[in-house]
Amino acid sequence: MTEIRDVSSYLIGAWCPPDAEARPIHDAATGRQLARAGHGSLDTAGILRHAREVGGPALRQLSFHDRARMIKALAQHLDANKQALYDLSFSTGATLRDHAFDIDGGIGTLFVFASKARREMPDATVYVDGPVEALSRDGSFVGQHICTPLRGAAIHINAFNFPVWGMLEKLAPTWLAGMPAIVKPATATCHVTELAVRIMLDSGHVPDGALQLVCGGIGDMLDHVSGQDVISFTGSAETAARLRSTPAIQREATRFSAEQDSLNATILGPDVPPDAPEFDLFVSEVIREMTVKAGQKCTAIRRILVPADAIDPVITALCARLSRITIGAADDPETDMGPLVSSAQCADVRAKAALIASEAACVFGDPDAPPPVPGGAFFAPLLFFCRDPDAAHLVHETEAFGPVATLMPYRDLDHAVALANRGQGSLVASLITHDPEVARTVTLGAAACHGRIYLADRTTMKAGSGHGAPLPHMIHGGPGRAGGGEELGGIRAVLHYMQRTAVQGSPDMLRAITGRHVPGATPVPAPAHPFTRGFDALHIGETLETEARTVTLDDIETFAHFTGDTFYAHMDDAAAARNPFFPGRVAHGYLLLSFAAGLFVHPEEGPVLANTGLDALRFLKPVSPGDSVSVLLTVMSKTPRNPAYGEVRWHVKIKNQNAEPVAEYELLTMNAFDTPAA
Amino acid sequence: MTEIRDVSSYLIGAWCPPDAEARPIHDAATGRQLARAGHGSLDTAGILRHAREVGGPALRQLSFHDRARMIKALAQHLDANKQALYDLSFSTGATLRDHAFDIDGGIGTLFVFASKARREMPDATVYVDGPVEALSRDGSFVGQHICTPLRGAAIHINAFNFPVWGMLEKLAPTWLAGMPAIVKPATATCHVTELAVRIMLDSGHVPDGALQLVCGGIGDMLDHVSGQDVISFTGSAETAARLRSTPAIQREATRFSAEQDSLNATILGPDVPPDAPEFDLFVSEVIREMTVKAGQKCTAIRRILVPADAIDPVITALCARLSRITIGAADDPETDMGPLVSSAQCADVRAKAALIASEAACVFGDPDAPPPVPGGAFFAPLLFFCRDPDAAHLVHETEAFGPVATLMPYRDLDHAVALANRGQGSLVASLITHDPEVARTVTLGAAACHGRIYLADRTTMKAGSGHGAPLPHMIHGGPGRAGGGEELGGIRAVLHYMQRTAVQGSPDMLRAITGRHVPGATPVPAPAHPFTRGFDALHIGETLETEARTVTLDDIETFAHFTGDTFYAHMDDAAAARNPFFPGRVAHGYLLLSFAAGLFVHPEEGPVLANTGLDALRFLKPVSPGDSVSVLLTVMSKTPRNPAYGEVRWHVKIKNQNAEPVAEYELLTMNAFDTPAA
Repeated sequence: MTEIRDVSSYLIGAWCPPDAEARPIHDAATGRQLARAGHGSLDTAGILRHAREVGGPALRQLSFHDRARMIKALAQHLDANKQALYDLSFSTGATLRDHAFDIDGGIGTLFVFASKARREMPDATVYVDGPVEALSRDGSFVGQHICTPLRGAAIHINAFNFPVWGMLEKLAPTWLAGMPAIVKPATATCHVTELAVRIMLDSGHVPDGALQLVCGGIGDMLDHVSGQDVISFTGSAETAARLRSTPAIQREATRFSAEQDSLNATILGPDVPPDAPEFDLFVSEVIREMTVKAGQKCTAIRRILVPADAIDPVITALCARLSRITIGAADDPETDMGPLVSSAQCADVRAKAALIASEAACVFGDPDAPPPVPGGAFFAPLLFFCRDPDAAHLVHETEAFGPVATLMPYRDLDHAVALANRGQGSLVASLITHDPEVARTVTLGAAACHGRIYLADRTTMKAGSGHGAPLPHMIHGGPGRAGGGEELGGIRAVLHYMQRTAVQGSPDMLRAITGRHVPGATPVPAPAHPFTRGFDALHIGETLETEARTVTLDDIETFAHFTGDTFYAHMDDAAAARNPFFPGRVAHGYLLLSFAAGLFVHPEEGPVLANTGLDALRFLKPVSPGDSVSVLLTVMSKTPRNPAYGEVRWHVKIKNQNAEPVAEYELLTMNAFDTPAA
Repeated sequence: MTEIRDVSSYLIGAWCPPDAEARPIHDAATGRQLARAGHGSLDTAGILRHAREVGGPALRQLSFHDRARMIKALAQHLDANKQALYDLSFSTGATLRDHAFDIDGGIGTLFVFASKARREMPDATVYVDGPVEALSRDGSFVGQHICTPLRGAAIHINAFNFPVWGMLEKLAPTWLAGMPAIVKPATATCHVTELAVRIMLDSGHVPDGALQLVCGGIGDMLDHVSGQDVISFTGSAETAARLRSTPAIQREATRFSAEQDSLNATILGPDVPPDAPEFDLFVSEVIREMTVKAGQKCTAIRRILVPADAIDPVITALCARLSRITIGAADDPETDMGPLVSSAQCADVRAKAALIASEAACVFGDPDAPPPVPGGAFFAPLLFFCRDPDAAHLVHETEAFGPVATLMPYRDLDHAVALANRGQGSLVASLITHDPEVARTVTLGAAACHGRIYLADRTTMKAGSGHGAPLPHMIHGGPGRAGGGEELGGIRAVLHYMQRTAVQGSPDMLRAITGRHVPGATPVPAPAHPFTRGFDALHIGETLETEARTVTLDDIETFAHFTGDTFYAHMDDAAAARNPFFPGRVAHGYLLLSFAAGLFVHPEEGPVLANTGLDALRFLKPVSPGDSVSVLLTVMSKTPRNPAYGEVRWHVKIKNQNAEPVAEYELLTMNAFDTPAA
């Protein structure tokens, strides 16, 4: 007889084994008790305090790039140790293919967030949100939104189906924001989460207090939340509604984000005949969504919307494919689909399927058949067909969280959209079409009710990620029935754990706070030409003012003929003067940029390695022959890219002889940390 | 005896007078009944249905620019009719100075939103949120977030203190999003809101169903909300917590945004001596915040934090100024401060002041004195001093919503920050300092607990908008005690009424949906050179491919000496090769831009009026002497700017002889609608 595994919690810096009031965890395939987890009582106030007082300060002293490096190191460490997670995870009913979503997908999410944070966030502790807002005409009073980490704890309440991904996809943005997390996995699969936590803690990369794990019940923790905490919930709509109404959450206006199971639909475009590649793609997509994780996926396809005249070939194709699905032990490489997570889950799916059966005919499988494999939580796929989806309502409301889906016919695109929206808010809808107009109609009709719309055709077959896979780049969540929350979506996800604050004041004050130069701030004199100074030596606000150069008609002629840009505004005085923008012939914009570079560039070999780009160039006033231009070049911000060099963003202002700005832009260069030896 | 005014509701397209169960509305100065409003029963389901089925579709068929023009027209119409609002509003206790905030401020907010929407949103019905995300290496599968209007109704529950601004600041973003609104003003001042609604409806600019007004109670409306509705609440924390827990809101995950009164603090910087201009600024700011709207402002200063050694001069200065405040009839030009809104409000403020008095000494005014003017709701200012704000708690929790504030000493900046944060989440904190380091320390310490931080010094004295004034550009709201909501903040406010949806698919599909060209989408052949075609004739995706031009060493030399840009990477083969980015001498980036323009520009006079700017230029690969470059110029998006011309955004890709991209950018031109006559 196998020993029963003790699944511990990690609380206030220590592993705490389960106690006498622990709950049992069963093997999905055999139903035997495998482990136990949980505690009779928890010091929930102490757990929150530890997160707030130890974890928060530790994370907040790291920059966004430091946090990104920590997350990348954790991803690498998990990746190196993932076999242990695979081995343990079979006991939850997850197959190797399922591990790719849960374990590899979770690790991949960490990698993407680490990489996006280093690309899209500064190496600082303040995130600058949006542009500087001019709040006064004279530029003396400006505004800037900043985001800073909330000072509380992030409480992550996760679902059983993705014990690894479900934790990691929330941890990455939480930690990037600078918030500590308290992870409460669903008990049925918390032994896998516990192992992932052990691997992460063993790596030595997690700061004290940044991660706590509560296996079993969460006790009265939600009664102790404040307005600086965040609750991020994944699970059933019923549980979400119950938790959401906790008095402390209402009173403290605590952020509560819910991602709930939903009645996701897929739509076969009316343009797709049975012999088109999109038809096969559609069938494969449905089969995959019904069988990955045995359909226990919040994004799985529950409703299959098909043009009325395509119902027969679709049923035929789906039944043929479903009949070839091999159900068996999760660790058997021949298995297509493992068991559900528990026999309780089987009973629930069976009950929900019975509700669906009251409105739809079963066209594959038999709701009353005995389990396909005896002993554990095995459940064979069921495909229903609902002939009148307008009159029906249970098929749009009842989520059987297993390999169960319902086919429905639609008359036209408006009907398809209306049926998709009958889900009352879903995480995802997909549409298989090769017609951009069909894609436009369905997307604009369904977008308000869906957090994600997945469009597939022959051109995305190779690279498309599939209906069911949330990607770290794109938001995951949906309105109404889907919970109203939003996760992932790149840096958007990080901001859920930060407070956005409008800061108003003088340009000098804003520069001191954001660490970025703000146009209008007092220039900092440059002790030497900034192109002679290493990345680390440059000060924010350091400004070089150049000599002036007169732009002659001859310059314009020369430039036009050299480059081939003989646009009439530069060459034809009368035509230029007819133009609403120009008094007559004017200098080329690129001539001004080029002359500006000629004025500010320091030619000798030095720390400036390359001009890598330019942003937000605006030409503000035309330059006529005889005008002269000079340049103000100011260090705006700096972002290290590797140990050898970093990106410097310069604010460039070209002005004319009357000190009027003629062009402004932001210039990017890559600068070495130290002046290379001669 | 004055006639009692009937304040009607505007419901389902008709004005509905109050009925027998109407509530009385009293004149603030006299206490006499002035008007009545309210209904014994409301067809709340019908009101919601009218918004969803009539107002929503009408607004959604307008583009963002159409909606912006409608809002601008309403602002102009309100501005032309504002005297009537001034006249009526005196009865609420608001003075002329108060009208500037409520009436002019509300109209100004409409103007700012109208202008921002036309500048920052497309002339379309889909808002594109963030960049295209590359989801596959080969570019065949990409992602784009879009925002589309929610299909429900926006229910605005507003506070009594700003009957006009409170409505308009929510209407502007709601309508811009494309959502209809149901406005429920506080009964005490709903007669002013009713008049503003009448003025707007009379203008003929409000689409049917886009605006309904519920005066009096809102009945059981919140029991009928769905996940597509939005509730935006302004008022007390108690009411917010009660409404928020409505079962339908919890069940449907309806968006609920609350902006509650909060215990806002102002901090005098430790760097400010009594003879500095910042000292006077501080005193004026406090006096203004205590007396505008007689302190009935959710952003008013409730807690005044002052360095311990500055307490005496601050008390002296504040008392001197408070003693000069003239309290009287709101319509008397000599009046500095009018009455509170009602005697019930007076009683509430008096009760709250008594709580504060249990922890603080009254240093100006007398909580037990009779009203300064008999008859109505007049209330004289009270200034308290709390010697030990660490031990105290009522002063940090008790909001006396009137001309009442409490002074507190602080020891050092950390102490000041800790005290400011004792408000448990506030709408705004202000800091008067001339030291950027002080500004940085306080801002970063307090940002997580505040929705806005206002920094003032001698340089912002002229243009600064003041501690208490929410600006349409910047967010308004705060965490925790302040309600956790967010309003205003430019286009951010519009997105609260839209659903963000992640759309994934091929570049062609995304282009069809967003109406913007997506790199990688199939080029649309240009029937003629695009520079010869008017703004309206250009198709999204239309692409010009140019001839190639070889870049010679001579070109590089010529360009370097002509422009003065003799940077070593272009001039010195050995030095360039030592650089990690270059194989040897390379062409200037601006040479490439200039040659590209030479390749794609059509020189003759035509619809292209000017090159106005350039965005997101990235140099991707160096160009060496002997390489040749050609250009793909594609119409990316179009935005009309006035009846004569509009902005065209072009995607430009410069590639080399091996078809590798060497640079990509977005070019902006202003293009006339039709080719001008020769």
